[in-house]
Amino acid sequence: MSIEGFRFVATSAAIKSAESTRLDLAAIVADAPCPAAAVVTKNRVRAAPAELCHKRARRGVAQAALVNSGNANAATGAQGMADAQRCSQLFSRAFEVNGAHVLPCSTGVIGVPLPMARIEPAIAQLAHTKTKSVRAFSEAILTTDKGPKVARANFSLRGKDYRVLAVAKGAGMIHPNMATTLAFVMTDAPVAPAHLKQVLAESSDATFNRISVDGDTSTNDTIIAFASPNTRGVSGERAPIDSPRLLDAFSACLGKVAEMIVADGEGAEHVAKIIVRGAKTNSDARRIAETIATSNLVKTAMAGKDPNWGRIAGAAGRAGVRFDQHELSIAIGGHLVFERGQNRMSAAVEKRASKVMARKKYEIEVCVGDGPGEDHYLTCDLGHAYVTVNADYRT
Amino acid sequence: MSIEGFRFVATSAAIKSAESTRLDLAAIVADAPCPAAAVVTKNRVRAAPAELCHKRARRGVAQAALVNSGNANAATGAQGMADAQRCSQLFSRAFEVNGAHVLPCSTGVIGVPLPMARIEPAIAQLAHTKTKSVRAFSEAILTTDKGPKVARANFSLRGKDYRVLAVAKGAGMIHPNMATTLAFVMTDAPVAPAHLKQVLAESSDATFNRISVDGDTSTNDTIIAFASPNTRGVSGERAPIDSPRLLDAFSACLGKVAEMIVADGEGAEHVAKIIVRGAKTNSDARRIAETIATSNLVKTAMAGKDPNWGRIAGAAGRAGVRFDQHELSIAIGGHLVFERGQNRMSAAVEKRASKVMARKKYEIEVCVGDGPGEDHYLTCDLGHAYVTVNADYRT
Repeated sequence: MSIEGFRFVATSAAIKSAESTRLDLAAIVADAPCPAAAVVTKNRVRAAPAELCHKRARRGVAQAALVNSGNANAATGAQGMADAQRCSQLFSRAFEVNGAHVLPCSTGVIGVPLPMARIEPAIAQLAHTKTKSVRAFSEAILTTDKGPKVARANFSLRGKDYRVLAVAKGAGMIHPNMATTLAFVMTDAPVAPAHLKQVLAESSDATFNRISVDGDTSTNDTIIAFASPNTRGVSGERAPIDSPRLLDAFSACLGKVAEMIVADGEGAEHVAKIIVRGAKTNSDARRIAETIATSNLVKTAMAGKDPNWGRIAGAAGRAGVRFDQHELSIAIGGHLVFERGQNRMSAAVEKRASKVMARKKYEIEVCVGDGPGEDHYLTCDLGHAYVTVNADYRT
Repeated sequence: MSIEGFRFVATSAAIKSAESTRLDLAAIVADAPCPAAAVVTKNRVRAAPAELCHKRARRGVAQAALVNSGNANAATGAQGMADAQRCSQLFSRAFEVNGAHVLPCSTGVIGVPLPMARIEPAIAQLAHTKTKSVRAFSEAILTTDKGPKVARANFSLRGKDYRVLAVAKGAGMIHPNMATTLAFVMTDAPVAPAHLKQVLAESSDATFNRISVDGDTSTNDTIIAFASPNTRGVSGERAPIDSPRLLDAFSACLGKVAEMIVADGEGAEHVAKIIVRGAKTNSDARRIAETIATSNLVKTAMAGKDPNWGRIAGAAGRAGVRFDQHELSIAIGGHLVFERGQNRMSAAVEKRASKVMARKKYEIEVCVGDGPGEDHYLTCDLGHAYVTVNADYRT
């Protein structure tokens, strides 16, 4: 179930409250310093651990990711940075790894200092914990997610089999503050640091940058990649690989956990894949797909299982991309509801399209012309449960 | 109550259904061709009447605005354009005005052809209707708005008093399709067409482009301005004025109806004025204000009366504007909750800020540095009522 070269540990540090016993402190530890890369939130209000992770991962080599849930250590000023550094130091001592090789991540409430009195002994404890499964790690990093998110992929190259493992936590904006997307992707394949960085950038752009729960990006979003600690340049044991299969496997794994995040969006009951075709360029198609995917009107129509193509057309039209509205066509779950600027919604079509929208997952296809540009976006519905989670509960 | 040089008419054309008796067809008619200007949606999926209105208003002279509610005549193809033209022709005949001087506006369901069999006789009827008040006009143009939106302003220049009148309908996205913002602003002051165009552009940018109900712009949004039909260049009777007081009066009137639209957003119970200061430029401040104003997390926190500054900080941080998070401060209704990157939320402050958020209207002030850039945005809360209106009812 695990992946060669890496181990997982998890414990409870009672971070959310002194009474809490749930797993909330965890780490991925490589057997030796290994190629590492990170993609970190572009939000200007960036948490101390995200700053530190970004800085350290730039070197291309690391050995561990230390994660806590229940407290984001964001908007905590100089104290927050000192705390993040202190956590790394303690971890470094407990696990005998270089402190500069520890990539910290936090998720949870904003603006509250970490409860260091409880975290410090827990980090020491982490080295002796018997809770060592991927499952325990995947549970410890959750906040309001309904369940853990783990995906695997395999690929073969020159007669050897390699594995890729991804673990993530959700992006639904989380009580009581903002959600954080955290994802970790590891491979037992030997990969050079520069190549790992590029593969992470491309695979996360193809997956995590094409999902939307509610359009808000958090102070702590981080995706970390590790490659086998047995790579040339680190231990010199094997020649690093450079194959499109690695990118495919990373994209497959990250794509799976990204889709799990959308399906587990706060209150979400439906996932729609918005596919846009016929645009002049891929980036035009992407802008249109993103605008539809983040439209509250489209998302509430999804919640109501309402094949309201007017809202989809309206969102496409305001994406800032030129197209001829008389070339616009829309299909929901394969049922054409709008064709080249004309309503095709009969009572029968409406019934069929609405039935498709009752499914957990379906496709909305939008064609804007005869150009070669194509792209997609995953989104979820916005129903009462979203409002309940985000408005009815108080901080 | 009216304004010299203009009259208002309204009738029922049973547009929504053959049984409907509500006012749904109305017009503003100037005594003679007069200076006119229009700002029309930039949505690529633009309704036929909006296309026609845009084209005709560019000439700078018009005499009437013909408005129907209940049907947007959008995404209706060639038939839609033919219908919009036919409506203008019939109106032109009934009111003895040049057809090219009729500016058509429609709002209501998308993708359904206008019920011309009922509209045609109603347009002829309009010329003989006894329903002639501003109030009747303001009611006839509504869709799901809770009530009419009318505002007035006065200004004096060289010993003469002038009046400005604005009438609008709401932007809450409307069952069963998309909402439309329609606004009409008239003055009895003599204004040259080019100046009227500029004043409309500036005043609508300062008001209508700084409100957000849910971030979706419609296929039909239109703002039309008329100046006195007694202007040089048209009737040659008086010298056109060119004074900042005209802009102030337009901005005041449009500002009032724009605020009414936000307050009447679907399900909205609270209006917040998001004020951003200390940015490098005004346009930086505007981007930050807009991002906060359109954040679902901020809007759901408003619904929950939750002074959740973490969401405000997070939205500010992802606006795409550079600022130092350690300079960021946030106040809610005058209560400082976050100061230069540090949490200032005590139990007492939280109680006071939450009390402010129970008000119908309050301010959220965000300071991002010591720059001269400043701007604001009006927004409303996103609660269960929004979801009820947009998801629970079906087309």
